Amino acid sequence: MTFMPQSQNAVDPVKLEKLAEVAVKVGLQLQRGQDLVVTAPVVALPLVRLITKQAYQAGAGLVSAFYSDEETTLSRYQYGSDESFDRASDWLYEGMAKAYADGAARLAVAGDNPLLLSEQDAGKVGRANRATSTAYKPALEKISNFDINWNIVSYPNPSWAKVVFPDDPEPIAIAKLARAIFAASRVDVDDPIAAWAEHNANLAKRSAWLNGERFASLHFKGPGTDLTVGLADGHEWHGGASTAKNGITCNPNIPTEEVFTTPHALRVEGHVSSTKPLSHQGTLIDNIQVRFEGGRIVEAKASRGEEVLNKVLDTDEGARRLGEVALVPHSSPISASGILFYNTLFDENASCHIALGQCYSKCFLNGATLSQEQIKAQGGNSSLIHIDWMIGSDKVDIDGLRPDGSRVAVMRQGEWA
Amino acid sequence: MTFMPQSQNAVDPVKLEKLAEVAVKVGLQLQRGQDLVVTAPVVALPLVRLITKQAYQAGAGLVSAFYSDEETTLSRYQYGSDESFDRASDWLYEGMAKAYADGAARLAVAGDNPLLLSEQDAGKVGRANRATSTAYKPALEKISNFDINWNIVSYPNPSWAKVVFPDDPEPIAIAKLARAIFAASRVDVDDPIAAWAEHNANLAKRSAWLNGERFASLHFKGPGTDLTVGLADGHEWHGGASTAKNGITCNPNIPTEEVFTTPHALRVEGHVSSTKPLSHQGTLIDNIQVRFEGGRIVEAKASRGEEVLNKVLDTDEGARRLGEVALVPHSSPISASGILFYNTLFDENASCHIALGQCYSKCFLNGATLSQEQIKAQGGNSSLIHIDWMIGSDKVDIDGLRPDGSRVAVMRQGEWA
Ligand SMILES: [Zn+2]
Ligand SMILES: [Zn+2]
Ligand SMILES: [Zn+2]
Ligand SMILES: [Zn+2]
Repeated sequence: MTFMPQSQNAVDPVKLEKLAEVAVKVGLQLQRGQDLVVTAPVVALPLVRLITKQAYQAGAGLVSAFYSDEETTLSRYQYGSDESFDRASDWLYEGMAKAYADGAARLAVAGDNPLLLSEQDAGKVGRANRATSTAYKPALEKISNFDINWNIVSYPNPSWAKVVFPDDPEPIAIAKLARAIFAASRVDVDDPIAAWAEHNANLAKRSAWLNGERFASLHFKGPGTDLTVGLADGHEWHGGASTAKNGITCNPNIPTEEVFTTPHALRVEGHVSSTKPLSHQGTLIDNIQVRFEGGRIVEAKASRGEEVLNKVLDTDEGARRLGEVALVPHSSPISASGILFYNTLFDENASCHIALGQCYSKCFLNGATLSQEQIKAQGGNSSLIHIDWMIGSDKVDIDGLRPDGSRVAVMRQGEWA
Repeated sequence: MTFMPQSQNAVDPVKLEKLAEVAVKVGLQLQRGQDLVVTAPVVALPLVRLITKQAYQAGAGLVSAFYSDEETTLSRYQYGSDESFDRASDWLYEGMAKAYADGAARLAVAGDNPLLLSEQDAGKVGRANRATSTAYKPALEKISNFDINWNIVSYPNPSWAKVVFPDDPEPIAIAKLARAIFAASRVDVDDPIAAWAEHNANLAKRSAWLNGERFASLHFKGPGTDLTVGLADGHEWHGGASTAKNGITCNPNIPTEEVFTTPHALRVEGHVSSTKPLSHQGTLIDNIQVRFEGGRIVEAKASRGEEVLNKVLDTDEGARRLGEVALVPHSSPISASGILFYNTLFDENASCHIALGQCYSKCFLNGATLSQEQIKAQGGNSSLIHIDWMIGSDKVDIDGLRPDGSRVAVMRQGEWA
């Protein structure tokens, strides 16, 4: 029941306001008159207040904020009836889908305790996640199809900070995580808006090169990994700022270091090992090893969280196939920080990664004009889930394979070749 | 941006948990498997956590909590564009209506700063309230028609406490307000559940007497008041616990001291003066004086907040007519506390009162079976608003007028005759 009074001194208020400004102006490019739906952990209230202020200053229509709370989430696991775990607030998610259809932008503040549910019954966690994913699908599609401008930023929640810096007292842990978030989000400079413009230009250059090459597949080779990821027909690489179907150019992820595209759902072969732990909705999954045949995971192991991993893979048919492949140099600032964040938004940007599940339709040439059937025919995967996990390190080499079978070095020992 | 660390010592955690228990077991009579929608100010999080726990312990389906925040509300007034004040989150309110239609119960935690919007532009406040009322109507009807079990309880918000006890330092003000809330809510006794059973029995006895009398009208006489309130044809008095159309017996208001019924929308004559200030959505309206002709307010004055009052009266046609008349003895515990709460949930239970706007269909004989047309034909008022204001004091006498014109003393100097 504490509201972390100490942490208020631990989080630099000037940088927090810069983060709010970057979220609204760079992350969302929120338009005059546009509504905004914010979701956040309740402890991130100081950031939500600044985001709300920035949004109204930018001429927002209505800003609506929805808060989650770790203690009430745990209350459900502790006291809730068994039947309740197959339920979700359908009406809320349907409503959000409607808000997006009517033009609202979407901002998520991340930062939940990555281990929140790690001691709860895996069956209940899986059932609750499945019920929520099903209810959330219409709203998530508006985001994954990039119909609207959207953004995720992070807040240094005390419970997250304690997981990242377990040996520090809480205020120190919060201060360290806050500094790491501000650095990765490029708000610890004089002019964050200009820094983001430059960063976006660099990522655009990498994407342009990959789009010029038009590789048929990528070959990953490293310890425990020998994986060929076929790329979807007519795939397109993206990175940094991107234009949503509503015409607004936004930066969906803050931070972001990746360039990414759509793999072919039927053309992934070989085996791959994760290089960082994956925190999935409160459970840690570590040392993942999977084998693909014809694009499908036919074998999956993990040294920790294997039961949750297998439940994830059983979500639906598309959960065993890839929806994204992404390239991140090992020297990226997040990787260089040496911090394991136990949070995909950060850790995926420290490492090359792949994602199980739903693909992004924007990662196709003329993606906005393609029907679901066309996307499927070109190799795009569909699923209730989209879960990124990390497969890059300074020991992994990547080749691009051209349609004629010739090879081009893309990365060597984790760096652009 | 403070989270009131001091106040945690100011609010007795044992009594707070008893308040949560009374809200769930007496206020809602929450059923096994029933969903619950909670709305609360974000500072009331400690109470929402206990309510969530009690609800899941009682076998709740899903508990969904939605938080408001005074600082982000003010942000809109400070920075929001003019256009935004005609907007509301329609999709959210539509969704809530759907949740209630699907069987969810409703719990509101009250306690906002009653003066929050008092320095904001009255035009904007009126427009925002109107937009919200319009969007909220389908959900509010499920509540005002008593389709579902619902309840309001209060939390001692620091900003509210400072208004009620302006001369005390914040922790003292919070402690005083907390004690007053616990006393009025009857949770400062050994067995609050038993105390509520006894209180409900007493209120039921008063209602039964009034229902036996079947008065045609009530005549209020006091300083600045000479008002005849015709009662609706087939009106029914209620008080304390009541059974919703879903069959669940609940206590909608905690605290409650009133017995109340439906006036006839066309049969109110004379003038009446308020006896306590009315806090309406952040603005204080004081010394209201209105004159009725044929049930309609034809003249309205106030020494403070007159502009807001007139905007309220202009909401729609029904806003100038009465939807409720309620009797509360001047010796009620809330009145006896001598505290002016600036909050209708408390102040209306310290005094006889009338409400502008929407009537309660349950306050008719066989109300659950009546159509909107029948309710109107019997004198029931309809409106987007329902605003109670206080007209009782120890200087007000009330007579009941029988259809034959004979008079029965109902209250003398504010007490049951
Ligand atoms: Zn990615
Ligand atoms: Zn991804
Ligand atoms: Zn009342
Ligand atoms: Zn009322």
